[in-house]
Amino acid sequence: MALSSGEIWNHLNGLTKPPGSLGRLEDLAARLCEIQQTLSPQTSPRRLVIFAGDHGVASSGVTVWPSSVTNLMLLNMCQGGAASTVLARQSRTDVVLVNVGTNEDPITNPPPGSSGIRYRSRRVCKGTRNLAIEPALTVDEFRQAWTIGTDEARSAAVDGMKVVLAGEMGIGNTTPASCLAMLLAQVPLETAVGRGAGANETSLHAKRNAVEQSVARARTLWATDPVAAMAAVAGLEIVAIAGFFAEAHRQGLTILLDGAVASAAALIAEFQSPGVSRSLIAAHQSTEPAHRGVLEKLKLTPFLDWNLRLGEGTGALLLLPLLDAAAALVSQMATLESFGISPRVTS
Amino acid sequence: MALSSGEIWNHLNGLTKPPGSLGRLEDLAARLCEIQQTLSPQTSPRRLVIFAGDHGVASSGVTVWPSSVTNLMLLNMCQGGAASTVLARQSRTDVVLVNVGTNEDPITNPPPGSSGIRYRSRRVCKGTRNLAIEPALTVDEFRQAWTIGTDEARSAAVDGMKVVLAGEMGIGNTTPASCLAMLLAQVPLETAVGRGAGANETSLHAKRNAVEQSVARARTLWATDPVAAMAAVAGLEIVAIAGFFAEAHRQGLTILLDGAVASAAALIAEFQSPGVSRSLIAAHQSTEPAHRGVLEKLKLTPFLDWNLRLGEGTGALLLLPLLDAAAALVSQMATLESFGISPRVTS
Repeated sequence: MALSSGEIWNHLNGLTKPPGSLGRLEDLAARLCEIQQTLSPQTSPRRLVIFAGDHGVASSGVTVWPSSVTNLMLLNMCQGGAASTVLARQSRTDVVLVNVGTNEDPITNPPPGSSGIRYRSRRVCKGTRNLAIEPALTVDEFRQAWTIGTDEARSAAVDGMKVVLAGEMGIGNTTPASCLAMLLAQVPLETAVGRGAGANETSLHAKRNAVEQSVARARTLWATDPVAAMAAVAGLEIVAIAGFFAEAHRQGLTILLDGAVASAAALIAEFQSPGVSRSLIAAHQSTEPAHRGVLEKLKLTPFLDWNLRLGEGTGALLLLPLLDAAAALVSQMATLESFGISPRVTS
Repeated sequence: MALSSGEIWNHLNGLTKPPGSLGRLEDLAARLCEIQQTLSPQTSPRRLVIFAGDHGVASSGVTVWPSSVTNLMLLNMCQGGAASTVLARQSRTDVVLVNVGTNEDPITNPPPGSSGIRYRSRRVCKGTRNLAIEPALTVDEFRQAWTIGTDEARSAAVDGMKVVLAGEMGIGNTTPASCLAMLLAQVPLETAVGRGAGANETSLHAKRNAVEQSVARARTLWATDPVAAMAAVAGLEIVAIAGFFAEAHRQGLTILLDGAVASAAALIAEFQSPGVSRSLIAAHQSTEPAHRGVLEKLKLTPFLDWNLRLGEGTGALLLLPLLDAAAALVSQMATLESFGISPRVTS
């Protein structure tokens, strides 16, 4: 017996506050109840899985950051010093870091530091090929990366997680995200390409060229092989996130969606496994111009609009305490009825 | 030696993320560092003080909720079932509830329930007079209410609080808040009066009339006695919050500012004790139309825009975990320099 939207709003409107007076927090609470199909939603335990991969297209000058930064950031995350890992610690969120394919493997087993962050090396290949020139991934590589994501979602479910978040690390990965926004959400080139985490005028020009050419080739592939088309413009960590989302949805987990790159992954997930977006909560609207169109395609309304553009799951992590707040209100507030409170007149 | 804005931003820009990529969260972090004059800001322990009072103007039909709801909500808060108390528990925030003057005293000493919420009965009088007809408070009552607020701020400082929040409960209290927005922030009548937590078309009309007439009288008083003018259109809990803010600023505490009513109190605080707003962080922009002009007058930019209009400190409580997140980033993130990371080219 499904819990309807009407029943959820009746419950929210009966709590000791004027109906609707908590605005977007009530929308968030309603969305959470709808996904979990309960008026006693749970937001703990929760896990952030950060998928990392390198991008051949970085050599085409689409970003000011060298690819070596991907691995340095993995080390930083293992030591707990990255934004994502600081925010995860703050919100008591478990972190798993999965290397789906950086150029080198930076971390000798076991990971350094005592941050409690688990590192798994599951490199499909040494980064993607340069999508500006040739398909970034083969269909086989796409499937391997997807499976890494589904494995992580199953692990999260087995470990009893109620909410999962996906983050990404990969220098150059807003370039494939822009391609996927064009290919899967029909976002026009002008809004599809933004500055990402680090593009100046020169790299923005290179990025626009790379995206335009690769999407044109992918569109040709689309008619005969959509997976090959997506693989041609994707990234290893993006495909892994897509698999993660698809399986997390299948496992009944609540998914907090981060920014532009994670949302591009959600497009792949929704295409491959329609219905995934019903388990998603869009944490925020990033500054990346493609993001708006991608969220619209997914029929999601973002909650925070804080000009975020870092990725790593940081936007989703920021919404997490507000999700906790929403859950607490739903299950812990007293009802107007229990206090005999009602308005003098009805409007 | 003061910590300058430039030094704060140099620190933020040197952390392991592209400069500015955490958007508003970085602005929040910078504001916190500026107030606390440190790159190791602290956000715990923290306390929410909820001040409650009744309003004679409620009898003029400015709200659909009967005044008796103020006391019922005090009981609800003491039992931990109100939105504010649920959110405070969630964010590990100490709560003190101060009755500055409800029509009756609902709570026999000690407070019922085991919610850990402290209740203090310090009623100046049995609610305010009807500001639509006569001055709501005398100057003496204004000073008594102010002192109750300063006492609470001193207690908070003595108890080692780093961050304080003020909430309010008082059926009808957006009416005095609208008056104060007009009187102290020159907000025009059309935008000064909104629906508050519960006004329908009829009560909105009554509210507009009450505000217009009382502000006209208060403006006449202003030239000779500004305190009498403010007292004429204020509320006991509003004046107490003003005193609380003024003293909290003097004590060097960081103040998270809630919505329209708390912000009207901040106008009084700033008028009586210029500089108070330097210790304020505006948590959110409420739906109450006067709020925007009041925040502009206080030179504050709100962080959340979530259509909140409940009060009780709920908006400030919602920003609190994000303030924790901002503080954690400032003091726990690694630096780009420590990883030898720099952009390939500078834009």
